[in-house]
Amino acid sequence: MAHAQTHQIDREARWCRQGHKSGVLWFTGLSGAGKSSLAIGLERILFDQDMRVFVLDGDNLRHGLNGDLGFSDADRQENIRRVTEVAEGFSGSGTIVITAFISPFRIDRDNARRVIGEQFHEVFIDAGLEICEARDPKGLYAKARAGEISNFTGISSPYEAPLNPELEVDTGTEDFDTCLERLRKYAISAFHL
Amino acid sequence: MAHAQTHQIDREARWCRQGHKSGVLWFTGLSGAGKSSLAIGLERILFDQDMRVFVLDGDNLRHGLNGDLGFSDADRQENIRRVTEVAEGFSGSGTIVITAFISPFRIDRDNARRVIGEQFHEVFIDAGLEICEARDPKGLYAKARAGEISNFTGISSPYEAPLNPELEVDTGTEDFDTCLERLRKYAISAFHL
Repeated sequence: MAHAQTHQIDREARWCRQGHKSGVLWFTGLSGAGKSSLAIGLERILFDQDMRVFVLDGDNLRHGLNGDLGFSDADRQENIRRVTEVAEGFSGSGTIVITAFISPFRIDRDNARRVIGEQFHEVFIDAGLEICEARDPKGLYAKARAGEISNFTGISSPYEAPLNPELEVDTGTEDFDTCLERLRKYAISAFHL
Repeated sequence: MAHAQTHQIDREARWCRQGHKSGVLWFTGLSGAGKSSLAIGLERILFDQDMRVFVLDGDNLRHGLNGDLGFSDADRQENIRRVTEVAEGFSGSGTIVITAFISPFRIDRDNARRVIGEQFHEVFIDAGLEICEARDPKGLYAKARAGEISNFTGISSPYEAPLNPELEVDTGTEDFDTCLERLRKYAISAFHL
């Protein structure tokens, strides 16, 4: 097997080719805070600016890769551990990954920061519990209050807010487009080569 | 949250943007058959042709995402299940994924085909056991023969060869560059838009 290559193309070569850095925008926040909507909106904006971007959220991970996991503390921790590793893989392939998971525990997000390194950007999608519960887009808060869902973040399981996120976006006081514009500005700056 | 997007950018829009399809080149074969070397060589060739491509192999998955798994039959099956889901994710993001895992069991590869669908391409990197054992680049066959490694494919665990792979490359009878050229031709044709 002469001429065998031994190293993959590194991320810097990929950045150079595509004209922007890759990394992970790690959205964290309560259910109903707007993580997925903002992630998908931001993906569209960056895609339209010719950037390589991909959203990882419960819709594409909870049923496939993490379909074997439930919602116990241990399973939620394993869920976020796998999201971390997959996000790191996408980032290594040159893609800007936007992860949209509640990821309520500081220790798990700090682990993600450790694994992903300087390409990790913690983005707190904030909105008070009262606002999220009033929105309740999936009816989950009602079920949690009724005791039909256990370990529900904000109701029967804690949410540990970020202490020093790279960016904080308050969807309770700012409208969707304003939040999206702040995210866009941040992303353009963060992934500028 | 007015104006919320509800759908991710689909893979066809990504293909259109980048000028080629995405999908999974699923390399399977014995240890020492040349899967990783060919995968990395092919990645370089496709990258140099301006294609989006990424290798998933033991080097980048066994230590991270699948670092909790050993080499029992159940763990190997879970390893390949996760590889399948991650490969499907990369393919969905527009990237051509080359997976380089022994993946000895037909049932697991058939599951990958089912999950990934028509973007799945099974590539049998063939070389007789005798040849692979003579190469023994990592000294693993010697250890397996000495009983220091259990469940070693080809020695103490079966390898179920593909019945109808999309492509078969015999590194026992053809040299590295010839194999690579056959892979290149196949990939260019398979991912042509």
